[in-house]
Amino acid sequence: MFDLLLLAPVGSILALGFAAYLAIFILRQPQGNERMCEIAQAVRIGAKAYLKRQYIGVSLFFAVVFIILLLLAFNKYLPIFVPFAFLTGGFFSGLSGFIGMAIATRASNRTAFGASKSLNSGLRIAFSSGAVMGLTVVGLGLLYISLGYYFLDWYYTSNPLAAGGNKIVAIVSVMLCFGMGASSQALFARVGGGIFTKAADVGADLVGKVEAGIPEDDPRNPAVIADNVGDNVGDVAGMGADLFESYVGSIVATCALGVAAGLGVVGITVPMALAAVGIIASIVGTFFVRAKEDATQAVLLAAIRRGILISAFIIVVAARFLIKFALGVEYMGLYWAILSGLLAGIFIGFSTEFFTSARYSPTRNLSDQSLTGPATVIIGGLALGMISTVIPVIVVGAAIIASFYLAGGAESFNAGIYGVGIAAVGMLSTLGITLATDAYGPVADNAGGNAEMAGLSPEVRKRTDALDSLGNTTAATGKGFAIGSAALTALALIAAYQQELVSQGKIVDLSLLNPRILVGLFIGGMLPFLFCALTMSAVGRAAGKIVVEVRRQFQEIKGLMEGTAKADYRRCVNIATKAAQGEMILPSLLAIVAPILTGILLGVDAQIGLLTGATVCGFVLATMMANSGGAWDNAKKYIEEGHMGGKGSFAHKAAVVGDTVGDPFKDTSGPSLNILIKLMSMVSIVFAAFVAKNALFK
Amino acid sequence: MFDLLLLAPVGSILALGFAAYLAIFILRQPQGNERMCEIAQAVRIGAKAYLKRQYIGVSLFFAVVFIILLLLAFNKYLPIFVPFAFLTGGFFSGLSGFIGMAIATRASNRTAFGASKSLNSGLRIAFSSGAVMGLTVVGLGLLYISLGYYFLDWYYTSNPLAAGGNKIVAIVSVMLCFGMGASSQALFARVGGGIFTKAADVGADLVGKVEAGIPEDDPRNPAVIADNVGDNVGDVAGMGADLFESYVGSIVATCALGVAAGLGVVGITVPMALAAVGIIASIVGTFFVRAKEDATQAVLLAAIRRGILISAFIIVVAARFLIKFALGVEYMGLYWAILSGLLAGIFIGFSTEFFTSARYSPTRNLSDQSLTGPATVIIGGLALGMISTVIPVIVVGAAIIASFYLAGGAESFNAGIYGVGIAAVGMLSTLGITLATDAYGPVADNAGGNAEMAGLSPEVRKRTDALDSLGNTTAATGKGFAIGSAALTALALIAAYQQELVSQGKIVDLSLLNPRILVGLFIGGMLPFLFCALTMSAVGRAAGKIVVEVRRQFQEIKGLMEGTAKADYRRCVNIATKAAQGEMILPSLLAIVAPILTGILLGVDAQIGLLTGATVCGFVLATMMANSGGAWDNAKKYIEEGHMGGKGSFAHKAAVVGDTVGDPFKDTSGPSLNILIKLMSMVSIVFAAFVAKNALFK
Repeated sequence: MFDLLLLAPVGSILALGFAAYLAIFILRQPQGNERMCEIAQAVRIGAKAYLKRQYIGVSLFFAVVFIILLLLAFNKYLPIFVPFAFLTGGFFSGLSGFIGMAIATRASNRTAFGASKSLNSGLRIAFSSGAVMGLTVVGLGLLYISLGYYFLDWYYTSNPLAAGGNKIVAIVSVMLCFGMGASSQALFARVGGGIFTKAADVGADLVGKVEAGIPEDDPRNPAVIADNVGDNVGDVAGMGADLFESYVGSIVATCALGVAAGLGVVGITVPMALAAVGIIASIVGTFFVRAKEDATQAVLLAAIRRGILISAFIIVVAARFLIKFALGVEYMGLYWAILSGLLAGIFIGFSTEFFTSARYSPTRNLSDQSLTGPATVIIGGLALGMISTVIPVIVVGAAIIASFYLAGGAESFNAGIYGVGIAAVGMLSTLGITLATDAYGPVADNAGGNAEMAGLSPEVRKRTDALDSLGNTTAATGKGFAIGSAALTALALIAAYQQELVSQGKIVDLSLLNPRILVGLFIGGMLPFLFCALTMSAVGRAAGKIVVEVRRQFQEIKGLMEGTAKADYRRCVNIATKAAQGEMILPSLLAIVAPILTGILLGVDAQIGLLTGATVCGFVLATMMANSGGAWDNAKKYIEEGHMGGKGSFAHKAAVVGDTVGDPFKDTSGPSLNILIKLMSMVSIVFAAFVAKNALFK
Repeated sequence: MFDLLLLAPVGSILALGFAAYLAIFILRQPQGNERMCEIAQAVRIGAKAYLKRQYIGVSLFFAVVFIILLLLAFNKYLPIFVPFAFLTGGFFSGLSGFIGMAIATRASNRTAFGASKSLNSGLRIAFSSGAVMGLTVVGLGLLYISLGYYFLDWYYTSNPLAAGGNKIVAIVSVMLCFGMGASSQALFARVGGGIFTKAADVGADLVGKVEAGIPEDDPRNPAVIADNVGDNVGDVAGMGADLFESYVGSIVATCALGVAAGLGVVGITVPMALAAVGIIASIVGTFFVRAKEDATQAVLLAAIRRGILISAFIIVVAARFLIKFALGVEYMGLYWAILSGLLAGIFIGFSTEFFTSARYSPTRNLSDQSLTGPATVIIGGLALGMISTVIPVIVVGAAIIASFYLAGGAESFNAGIYGVGIAAVGMLSTLGITLATDAYGPVADNAGGNAEMAGLSPEVRKRTDALDSLGNTTAATGKGFAIGSAALTALALIAAYQQELVSQGKIVDLSLLNPRILVGLFIGGMLPFLFCALTMSAVGRAAGKIVVEVRRQFQEIKGLMEGTAKADYRRCVNIATKAAQGEMILPSLLAIVAPILTGILLGVDAQIGLLTGATVCGFVLATMMANSGGAWDNAKKYIEEGHMGGKGSFAHKAAVVGDTVGDPFKDTSGPSLNILIKLMSMVSIVFAAFVAKNALFK
């Protein structure tokens, strides 16, 4: 019979091939006039310069951790492949972000030019750029896992002694560590990029819009290029690395749980083949994202939705056959686990949209509250974000219960928890296309900046704004999705961590009332708050530096306001880069140091408590921050469309305060929390043997 | 040998006697001029009217729950005494708040008059009023528990059959339910009072200060009396009920854990005698809160600190003898548990002060951030609150670990968890005096309002302001303390709940990876967010109603601004009362419905997960909200003292936005979270048998 595992490399190569095809399509589109190319180039250079510097910093970090892991491996705490898995995982995660950004920075002026023809032409280029990113992430992710699997399989088959008697257990125990490098890279990318983008954004707005009174994306603003660079390094490169990590993490954790559940190689085949099916479904789905040349915004949104739903439908059908062939009808429970994951993702998406889109009452009420000033907007936005956590928590809770019991958890805990892992993979299976809709947003945003700076006609700007606001809706959905899948993946990782401890002969008292578990829960519950505090203050400090520089340029460069002299864009990019690089270190170290230190001081039980507490609080807090931020942004946009007095009114000023507070919420702190909770689990897994042996509390 | 248990009724009667003595002292002080009496009377009448209405609403609630409990008792789900314990607990909790408020509303004009002589005279009256409240709370609390104990002991001794073979187990299983009535009353008082006070405050400020441009506490403002009433019903009556509940809850939970640990009646004696020792220590401590007539603010603060530290020192010495005599030297570990609780309380107090007082860098930096506008003040205050959770979490974690293991947790889980309960009682043992320092703040605040409205000389207002700002510091410390003790008490209650289930023959799978525990954790983690969202929006809506009314009066009452016509204060009080009563229902029901519903739908294991998740998230969120709110308030006050451009500057306006956002944070949502988590545990305990039997998931 056909080896279903082969679907994985086939699917990943298909994804990469199709991404390459789309990339060529984009590069063949007309670039627009000279000014447009010039601006796009400036953004591209700035983004590259940032990434170069970021990769240098991250490389140092990777070198240090690599050496530590090598030492652990030499002392038999780890299989020797783990340090290399760490390096390669980090490399591929970074590469995903880099490719996504390389194409996004080339797509922005082409999108602007396309939009000068029609809304649909603009969408096609921007969406293709998003699809390149989405397919690159899933393609590289699955390729990386497949190659790793085949290599380890070959190695342990030729060296049965090294496998310690059980080849498949040896394989998954290395694969489980694939995620740590990816997560580290992702955390740096999200935090660093997030600080960069919001520092540039806030700095540009505070001086340019508020003090100097020039419009957004005005070429006279010295921070305008930095702002556009920020969209690319934060929202594109950061997101790419982030979701690469989610994807890889959920698949490898599920593989490990499958083997622990006694399914052998089939336990590995199911998640990998499911991911491959998802890739094919995503590719098919992208073909349905098209509309007529004169399509309106609503039609385009419907087109995007159609693409996602068709992909989901293909998975629903194909997964049934997959489970039947791979495992047999008696495992049909796993099929329902897949469905519960998929459904949960869709519900979370709807809930996010309901709470953050100006088409629904919550955000409209929020813009009403701007009539009584900034304080009520802030209170209203925080309350909105808090209440918006209810549905995602219930949906994720239902998905956990459903997938656990449908997969046979009542009889076997391991079978049930494997079901939860499968649900996470199911939720992420459509990532190729959902990420496309998410990553398309920043391209549209940049296209708008390009059109504005190049002085294209207002009609073009209006079209790019329509694309951008479409992007806001789809991006919010994508974020809810990322957060929901993170919760499931984190649970799978925690379970895998506990299995890892068991396999090392370490039995942990998992009772909720074990005081060390309780203390771990408290510490874990506090960490997301600490992490947010650190990243939000970092944005504040970095923005302050940009403010000083922009003010300086306006004062010192004569003729800047009149448009006769050019701003020094590069300096702003440099300042934001330096600030982001300096500020990302402390929060990132937290993710690595906190679990290890807690484990050593209070024992592995406290560490499991910490991971669980962080997952619970992190999930709720991340949802709240993403939705508060999204709602503030859209409430402001709603007012700018002419409601409550429109631009420049008292209500608008209040709404701008909300939007500024929401910036670090939704683009720096909130979306980094997903990575935080998964990286902490990954670190715990990799350091499990070391911590278990050296813990002061046994 | 002397029966140490007798210390409890003796101590409680001492407390009540000394409170009566202080009350008489206050009532004998001169009341000030006619205008001052008139204003005080208006506030008193308003506060009474509010409380009357609140008690009517709450009585309805109590009647319904009483009938439900009676039905459960008739169906053998509960001992027959529980419904009555529920009623009486609610009654005493309400009474504590009522007495505290009755004296506070009489102390305000007397404090204002005292302050017209010297700072010290003002302090003596205000502090005495706080002490009446503090001692009433602990006196009534301990009296209630003692009477309950002696009654149950008598009953079960005369009816051994009813005790089902084990008298002491029967006694504590009823006593454990003492807290539910108190907690319900407290939640209504805190939420209702909190909504009232902040709606009136925000409403008065938004129209009076911002729109009409008249100073705070100006008699022309129609909402000014409502604002002063709010301080009394929220910060005094609400806080009294709240801490009565904390006190009773921690003692009864610890008694139950002591019996479960096999200590028999000694397990009951230790917490009750410790509480009695704490009362005596508190009374002694109050004698040291005095200064010379010409004392400065710093000297007065030192005097308050001295009082608290002397009380703590007395407990440190006396508890040692107590443990030695009650249990013998082999139980000396419990003494260390007491100390760890006391110390943790002190550290949390210091941490709170550091983060919220303008004498330290965090709040000073926050006022710097007001220079760049409201958005940066909000981001900075949120980040400050988030980072301020680190020390309390670590301190509480250390106290849990220390008290558990010092009390012998390594050998016996029950002994260890009893230690955690004892630590909670230890932390609350100085409540008589710490609550005095907390409850004194609103009196000083009202005295300032009284002086302002009565048109006393600016010198007097300056002195009452000094008293008020002193009160802010001590109140912040008190709040940190309430939150910290709530975390420990909640854990003791959860443990007691689990013991209760075990005693009913229900064994729960407490594993952290049990998917229903996990889902419970998620739901529990979300509930504090939902609760805050509900209460914050309630404040917003209620404030909106006050705004409309105040605007109407300014428009329709001719001569109001000129001072020739009188404002209709009563209408504002009525509106705030009605709004608060209506808005408090939904959040309060949440606390009762959520755990029962979760237990029935997902089983008792999910319910334990819910309680734990809510405790973890609630503790962190409550700390954050209290400290963000306190820091915003003090940053604004710091600017008003003349920094960053002083009153009316751009920075001041930004800081006012922060303060307005902080109002519901620190006085409505934040301080109600403590009660939420404890009430949910209490409800779970009371409904344990019912839920365990009727759960859909067994």
